[in-house]
Amino acid sequence: MKLKVIVPITSKVFEDETKEEIKTMAGPGVVLDAEGIQYGTASIESIYDELLCAPGIIKVGEKAQSEGFDGIFVSCMGDPAVEALREKLDIPVVGPCRTSMIFAADLASTFSVVTVLENVKYLIASIAHQLSLSRKLASVRSVDIPVLDLADKEKLVTSLINESLRAVREDGAHAIILGCTGMMGVSELLSEGLKAEGCDVPVIYPVPVAIKYLELLVSLGLNQSQMTYMTPTKKERNIWDKLS
Amino acid sequence: MKLKVIVPITSKVFEDETKEEIKTMAGPGVVLDAEGIQYGTASIESIYDELLCAPGIIKVGEKAQSEGFDGIFVSCMGDPAVEALREKLDIPVVGPCRTSMIFAADLASTFSVVTVLENVKYLIASIAHQLSLSRKLASVRSVDIPVLDLADKEKLVTSLINESLRAVREDGAHAIILGCTGMMGVSELLSEGLKAEGCDVPVIYPVPVAIKYLELLVSLGLNQSQMTYMTPTKKERNIWDKLS
Amino acid sequence: MKLKVIVPITSKVFEDETKEEIKTMAGPGVVLDAEGIQYGTASIESIYDELLCAPGIIKVGEKAQSEGFDGIFVSCMGDPAVEALREKLDIPVVGPCRTSMIFAADLASTFSVVTVLENVKYLIASIAHQLSLSRKLASVRSVDIPVLDLADKEKLVTSLINESLRAVREDGAHAIILGCTGMMGVSELLSEGLKAEGCDVPVIYPVPVAIKYLELLVSLGLNQSQMTYMTPTKKERNIWDKLS
Amino acid sequence: MKLKVIVPITSKVFEDETKEEIKTMAGPGVVLDAEGIQYGTASIESIYDELLCAPGIIKVGEKAQSEGFDGIFVSCMGDPAVEALREKLDIPVVGPCRTSMIFAADLASTFSVVTVLENVKYLIASIAHQLSLSRKLASVRSVDIPVLDLADKEKLVTSLINESLRAVREDGAHAIILGCTGMMGVSELLSEGLKAEGCDVPVIYPVPVAIKYLELLVSLGLNQSQMTYMTPTKKERNIWDKLS
Amino acid sequence: MKLKVIVPITSKVFEDETKEEIKTMAGPGVVLDAEGIQYGTASIESIYDELLCAPGIIKVGEKAQSEGFDGIFVSCMGDPAVEALREKLDIPVVGPCRTSMIFAADLASTFSVVTVLENVKYLIASIAHQLSLSRKLASVRSVDIPVLDLADKEKLVTSLINESLRAVREDGAHAIILGCTGMMGVSELLSEGLKAEGCDVPVIYPVPVAIKYLELLVSLGLNQSQMTYMTPTKKERNIWDKLS
Amino acid sequence: MKLKVIVPITSKVFEDETKEEIKTMAGPGVVLDAEGIQYGTASIESIYDELLCAPGIIKVGEKAQSEGFDGIFVSCMGDPAVEALREKLDIPVVGPCRTSMIFAADLASTFSVVTVLENVKYLIASIAHQLSLSRKLASVRSVDIPVLDLADKEKLVTSLINESLRAVREDGAHAIILGCTGMMGVSELLSEGLKAEGCDVPVIYPVPVAIKYLELLVSLGLNQSQMTYMTPTKKERNIWDKLS
Repeated sequence: MKLKVIVPITSKVFEDETKEEIKTMAGPGVVLDAEGIQYGTASIESIYDELLCAPGIIKVGEKAQSEGFDGIFVSCMGDPAVEALREKLDIPVVGPCRTSMIFAADLASTFSVVTVLENVKYLIASIAHQLSLSRKLASVRSVDIPVLDLADKEKLVTSLINESLRAVREDGAHAIILGCTGMMGVSELLSEGLKAEGCDVPVIYPVPVAIKYLELLVSLGLNQSQMTYMTPTKKERNIWDKLS
Repeated sequence: MKLKVIVPITSKVFEDETKEEIKTMAGPGVVLDAEGIQYGTASIESIYDELLCAPGIIKVGEKAQSEGFDGIFVSCMGDPAVEALREKLDIPVVGPCRTSMIFAADLASTFSVVTVLENVKYLIASIAHQLSLSRKLASVRSVDIPVLDLADKEKLVTSLINESLRAVREDGAHAIILGCTGMMGVSELLSEGLKAEGCDVPVIYPVPVAIKYLELLVSLGLNQSQMTYMTPTKKERNIWDKLS
Repeated sequence: MKLKVIVPITSKVFEDETKEEIKTMAGPGVVLDAEGIQYGTASIESIYDELLCAPGIIKVGEKAQSEGFDGIFVSCMGDPAVEALREKLDIPVVGPCRTSMIFAADLASTFSVVTVLENVKYLIASIAHQLSLSRKLASVRSVDIPVLDLADKEKLVTSLINESLRAVREDGAHAIILGCTGMMGVSELLSEGLKAEGCDVPVIYPVPVAIKYLELLVSLGLNQSQMTYMTPTKKERNIWDKLS
Repeated sequence: MKLKVIVPITSKVFEDETKEEIKTMAGPGVVLDAEGIQYGTASIESIYDELLCAPGIIKVGEKAQSEGFDGIFVSCMGDPAVEALREKLDIPVVGPCRTSMIFAADLASTFSVVTVLENVKYLIASIAHQLSLSRKLASVRSVDIPVLDLADKEKLVTSLINESLRAVREDGAHAIILGCTGMMGVSELLSEGLKAEGCDVPVIYPVPVAIKYLELLVSLGLNQSQMTYMTPTKKERNIWDKLS
Repeated sequence: MKLKVIVPITSKVFEDETKEEIKTMAGPGVVLDAEGIQYGTASIESIYDELLCAPGIIKVGEKAQSEGFDGIFVSCMGDPAVEALREKLDIPVVGPCRTSMIFAADLASTFSVVTVLENVKYLIASIAHQLSLSRKLASVRSVDIPVLDLADKEKLVTSLINESLRAVREDGAHAIILGCTGMMGVSELLSEGLKAEGCDVPVIYPVPVAIKYLELLVSLGLNQSQMTYMTPTKKERNIWDKLS
Repeated sequence: MKLKVIVPITSKVFEDETKEEIKTMAGPGVVLDAEGIQYGTASIESIYDELLCAPGIIKVGEKAQSEGFDGIFVSCMGDPAVEALREKLDIPVVGPCRTSMIFAADLASTFSVVTVLENVKYLIASIAHQLSLSRKLASVRSVDIPVLDLADKEKLVTSLINESLRAVREDGAHAIILGCTGMMGVSELLSEGLKAEGCDVPVIYPVPVAIKYLELLVSLGLNQSQMTYMTPTKKERNIWDKLS
């Protein structure tokens, strides 16, 4: 089974880190391949950024299918272009936000997402609402750190613990979702930090969860519905002239 | 007051027809200017198409603001890039689907949208849901005519009447929204056709409604919330290198 | 276009102030005419008051249609008798609460209403719920000033700023609706006061918004649905013997 | 315990029939007293009628409290003036629509209301929605018989059976609420008719249910919340000059 | 009319106290009989406990019907086995949580439940959600006292007042439901305590409310829907071999 | 990794068939062990049956944890005792209905469940509602075949195809969930049958999906929230005296 992990931004650093990170995540017989996009934005922190990256993501996704990949994971919490790829492709496409939220909906009565910046709160809440899970979304909180500054892990972990505790104690969250796929290598520290405060809740880091979920779908032959995500009709699409 | 009407596809025919159509729609002291996009898709009939047109729409929108326009209307029922433009710009940006639905929500207990193809039903229902209006959306129906074939007005009107009657009689709709901004010049015929069948419900053609709504917002100094639609942070966005 | 503004209470002061206020609100070719009711209550601050004013409002509304008016705006945030008039009349009837809320639903992900007294909070929340917008209503707050004491603008503005800030910071509102049509001449001061506190959200003063919305409906030939608001059947209605 | 049954219309026939009907409904130690209103409309079949009857209903309700009644039941499925009386009075006030719906919500997963005319369907659905029970309301159907023609019991029962069967079989209702308090003496016939068709669902006739519910509230000292239904503030209410 | 009150735990103390308590609750002509279960758990403070008591409750319920009882009340706020008994039996079965919540939904716009332990908050919120009343549930709070320690009435009343005040002031509750049927003899004290703090809201003690509601159902011949609660099919059920 | 599959009924045939069926479902390094219950009911087709089987299920679950199993799957579409086990145990516990529904919620805008008998429709709809997914549940349909008669695969497949087609065409489902874990070996036939009718939707057979989901949770160290599912307090539970 070959799975493509799309790093849907133009930052090479993130592409490299993702390649490194996912090395240990593949199950037996699973090949994981991460790939960035060529044209878009350096990071995604708004609907605006999402849309500017979308053509680049779609391009990598279409190529992946043509190269024989069995499934696609778009590694950004806004789930950019996930539904567009679901329309266009025959293979399963998953997003980390959707996946984390449905899992949290099963494991806890309520959950919060702790993300990077205030700017993406509306975007993430909209995905919960689209999935019909608004009632279970206790809050979206932010650590107020831009995506490209997430490398300072100590600062990140401290902020994550603080905001997660507030999510649990003030907002009533019973599970925490890390709200950016760039929050690498911190979920265990967050989990321990919360337990040290007497707060034993599931901490969901979306990257491995979404990858395993994609493996599961592929291995069972499950796919997105062709009735929800109908194949786009044929027509002239001159954007490809510019982005090829 | 200068308002920009973005025809968010690459079809020149539609751009020209829109220019013609809106001539009579401007209120006193209002200048309406329609403009198509350079790169994208010939029509929008999927989320896939929407995302491929989004950068082109954003580009026209940003240019409009820099040229002193006071408001923007993106003339496509998927409201493509409307929320991204709301983040990026300081002037009001409206979409026909959002506008029609909030008006219908006031004027009737339920409404249906009659659109072009099955493919866009999920997209339109998602907008209703995002606005919290799912409960009032009786149904989304389609006339099964692609956007680029809407020129056959007779066929279109017949299908619109049939599907609208089913929306009212079978689905319980109390108002009808025309589900494509390319359904030009047919709303009165639909309205009369429905009345002839004993079915007196509001028929909302989104183009003039959204334009008047935009005029209203500009004239009263109202704008989208800067807290919902926060300004995108600064960063490298190399997509513009390709699309300039 | 002739539009009737019903001041749905018996206080002559409010009728006069409304007449004065709306002078500048009419668009080109629009005649606005304000009229109070003869029998009812001095102000509306409860469902009880609403119902006692309803026959008087209906009477003015029926007269307006018979005199050739093209649309009616009932200027009170409880939208008293709006739905009854929609049943009885052939011309569009709008209410400030419904109108403000649908506009806010488009412009922001959440909104709060800041009204006069605790007594009307349930009434206003009920209208949001009826429109299916409960999820977007962050809160209803009150300045604790009765309608007939709103003349002290300084006190009013100070209280409005305080409660609006709490709505934004504590309740998560992204837009503010002024919760009484008697809050005349303060929306700009509120808006500035909020911006001075770093809080840039739309402030919706319902009076001009509803009037422009009514203009829009009339100019486009749009009306409330005859299927939601069916014409009352004929029967004896002896209340008119008393209230004529 | 003395309970007032307000017959909230001006039709003397209904007042008399109600007086007759409730004779057998009082529990031990309970005095039931029915009283019509002096000014209003002959029957209630619209929001318009409701509002025209409201002052008359309020007047009878206020008198009842001053005369020492312990609770009030407003016998019309639109629950006219029920919430206004709850604000004004210190004694419990119940409506048949609210009561029937909460009971049906406990006894069945879904329910339908079969009412008199299409005209009141929106009104009844609005009450379900206000109670947060829209999800459980399978449908509102009508027998298409005006209130004042309900005397033809045979026609009524036949229509009720037909519409109730459709509610169960087509709309998925698991309980039926009779949608007009004027549908006297037919609930058992409807129940038997449904059973004869293999349809064993609860049939709720709102009049005895609401009266027993009111008895229950009074006997346990329960009352509507003073925080939801706050006491109206003092002010001039000149409508009473006309309606005294 | 003979009504069975099932005390659905194995604690004899609670069975005896319930027998004592309900002596004064029966209406004229009503016989109330309380009975504990033989096998289960000493108290119910989790879904786990509920399920372990369920067979014992069902056994007492089936016996009650065979002995000619006319209705059953299962006296525990988790409404344990209520829906199972509704399937199996021909007589009405009521639960205190469902009953209190529907009554509160009529009497107030919002309500809170103040229960024993944090452990049961999810359970109680689930019942509100199942009834479609989540929107009206302001909060579930706990006094942090186990069921078997409720005998210390002074401590209980103090905690109830504190938590109820927070429910009203912080969570926006307009009515309070006592969240354990073991909170005997304290509702009036709670009500007085709240009034002393200026907080006049209905306090619903579920035991008498559910008993009176059951009386009402039986007296009017109303029953749970046989379509929602279908009769279980015949099959081998060997659990009875062990629990007989 | 050792996972326990609880066959939560007393039918030995089903236990044996499940043991056979799951042989091929275990991933590398995963041991799957199926076990029936000793006391309960022969099959589960009602809430009544669920509760009678619950203590037996709990017993097997507690034993599994004490024997070192890493996770538990309760193989019945009513998810019997799943939430009770989540409270009591430290290892993840999953149910097929919850799991299938969250997956369907991601893969399609709407889904239907096709189950065995009318009797379980309410039960299954309740689980969708509890997960906040009512809006996405297009319908619950039944093939009208009792659990213990599912061996006639031909009849089963024919009925499944018919009901699934109606779910898609009449109810608007975009995915189908097999509504009984006893519907073994038919999902591919159903999928092919639907495709032959032009209906290409995901068919979710819950057994492998739930097992893979459980594997995923265990492998990632994810567990149900200890705040939603709090550990039951200590107390006397004499039911175990009888069921040991």
